[in-house]
Amino acid sequence: MQSSAETAGLLLVLLDLTGIFVFALSGGLVGVRKELDVFGVLVLAAATGLGGGFMRDVLIDAAPPAALADWRYLMVPVAAGLVTFWFHPALGRMEHLVTVFDAAGLGLFCVAGALKALDYGLGPVPAALMGTLTAVGGGVVRDVLAGRVPVVLRSELYATPALVGASVAVLGEQTVLATWTYAIPAAALCTTWRLVAVWRGWHAPRPAGSAST
Amino acid sequence: MQSSAETAGLLLVLLDLTGIFVFALSGGLVGVRKELDVFGVLVLAAATGLGGGFMRDVLIDAAPPAALADWRYLMVPVAAGLVTFWFHPALGRMEHLVTVFDAAGLGLFCVAGALKALDYGLGPVPAALMGTLTAVGGGVVRDVLAGRVPVVLRSELYATPALVGASVAVLGEQTVLATWTYAIPAAALCTTWRLVAVWRGWHAPRPAGSAST
Amino acid sequence: MQSSAETAGLLLVLLDLTGIFVFALSGGLVGVRKELDVFGVLVLAAATGLGGGFMRDVLIDAAPPAALADWRYLMVPVAAGLVTFWFHPALGRMEHLVTVFDAAGLGLFCVAGALKALDYGLGPVPAALMGTLTAVGGGVVRDVLAGRVPVVLRSELYATPALVGASVAVLGEQTVLATWTYAIPAAALCTTWRLVAVWRGWHAPRPAGSAST
Repeated sequence: MQSSAETAGLLLVLLDLTGIFVFALSGGLVGVRKELDVFGVLVLAAATGLGGGFMRDVLIDAAPPAALADWRYLMVPVAAGLVTFWFHPALGRMEHLVTVFDAAGLGLFCVAGALKALDYGLGPVPAALMGTLTAVGGGVVRDVLAGRVPVVLRSELYATPALVGASVAVLGEQTVLATWTYAIPAAALCTTWRLVAVWRGWHAPRPAGSAST
Repeated sequence: MQSSAETAGLLLVLLDLTGIFVFALSGGLVGVRKELDVFGVLVLAAATGLGGGFMRDVLIDAAPPAALADWRYLMVPVAAGLVTFWFHPALGRMEHLVTVFDAAGLGLFCVAGALKALDYGLGPVPAALMGTLTAVGGGVVRDVLAGRVPVVLRSELYATPALVGASVAVLGEQTVLATWTYAIPAAALCTTWRLVAVWRGWHAPRPAGSAST
Repeated sequence: MQSSAETAGLLLVLLDLTGIFVFALSGGLVGVRKELDVFGVLVLAAATGLGGGFMRDVLIDAAPPAALADWRYLMVPVAAGLVTFWFHPALGRMEHLVTVFDAAGLGLFCVAGALKALDYGLGPVPAALMGTLTAVGGGVVRDVLAGRVPVVLRSELYATPALVGASVAVLGEQTVLATWTYAIPAAALCTTWRLVAVWRGWHAPRPAGSAST
């Protein structure tokens, strides 16, 4: 029978790996849209999937990052890159799928990032910020490499759901509840909020006098 | 009564926080120009204000960076982002203000970065380079995220004033003088030099045969 | 008489410095093409030459990077920047030279990066990945700063020769052979493969339905 600490550790790895996979899918699709060849698609998938976690691990002094210390981690974005390369949909649906995978990764990474930061001894507020940075980082790497405006700067809600999801995970960790009881709802909250915001076209206020609409 | 080491430490924090604030103002204004919404402006302000210091802290092995370990640090770029969002000037004056705040941040960060690197045991030349990188880093992050040519690559003097300011601070640290007696003049020298260079249109030489003017 | 460990250490430094020099040449030439002034050329040369090594050193926890701890390291990209600024060729040949120097740096860095990662206790697979990242990193920094599509995402073979070169170096390190007997062939293999791929226009497969050619 596993102890609850072991189960929590396993859950964290699972959140992290699933997050890497879905972020890598979003990066691979952007690569396909940009008509990159198979290696370009793989590199963009890997950079997107691993970028946020690398930033987190370097900042919380957990170097070398798990993805470099354990080669099985690296198989995940490679698999995601190959999947997008071979099974990508028609161009019309691609941008939607990028948004969906990106939102899923955002939810998974804000929670996994926050919990890992707590594990490494950061306080609650820094841990919530690390979770947000982990979640946001992969998309920034993808968009900067692909020459797109980073999604976090574009006009829909993006960083806020990640910050809220990470905060819920940090708050949950202060209780006696089992990790999955708050980690999974926190990730779902972030992802759902992000998707609803995109689909309903929610916009945050813009600077007075700058918006032309 | 405070010891001189405590006063020097306080001065370093003050230089750092003021530098974060003015750099964040420059980032926020670029965000307003790009017509980002309030969250985009906040993210760009925070990335600009904290980017250089993150690079420095990761490179001198001072992870996790102060801005993540102490949440009060993070309030500074958030405040700057909100200020630019609500009180930004008319578009015509914005680019001038970006240049001014950027120059102020350059001066403050080249000194704060160099002194912190010395504190962490780096030698004089590496410390001067870390100061320059800290000063230059925030603007690079801002401009890469916003899809602008990084200011450090554009045609006015930029890295040189930072290197000179950092070197003056490093040289001062070898003396018995109180920190503020060389830290503040070093920052002022860098900022003034940068501003005079911009306003008088000073250009460094260009490669032969490449300039069309 | 030097021990073999000392010779191996010297060889590693030599590979690293030569790699920094040729990458910095490629960065300097891109700066000349972009009509940057002398400081912009120097900054782009230094960022290209040192970027990959900084990423490696931060990720394997070898901070502060050698280039910051030892000022002689920094003289190398500065020298390369000045060389490109004063002795750059006519525009027509420049892009070819960027490719050649970039390929040379790729070969040198994939080997130097992999061997340094092994020195710092990483396993064989992570070390090969670190070598690849070191080799690829400088070009990504150069191209992102200069607003070009990163070479690693463009359509010729790039990351694969680096991964193979790094893997050969890692495999060699498991044997009793002297370091130079596998390090130099591994670097030459990567560089030659990359150049032949560019010159013969070898392309990796593209996603079905996305390529218009």
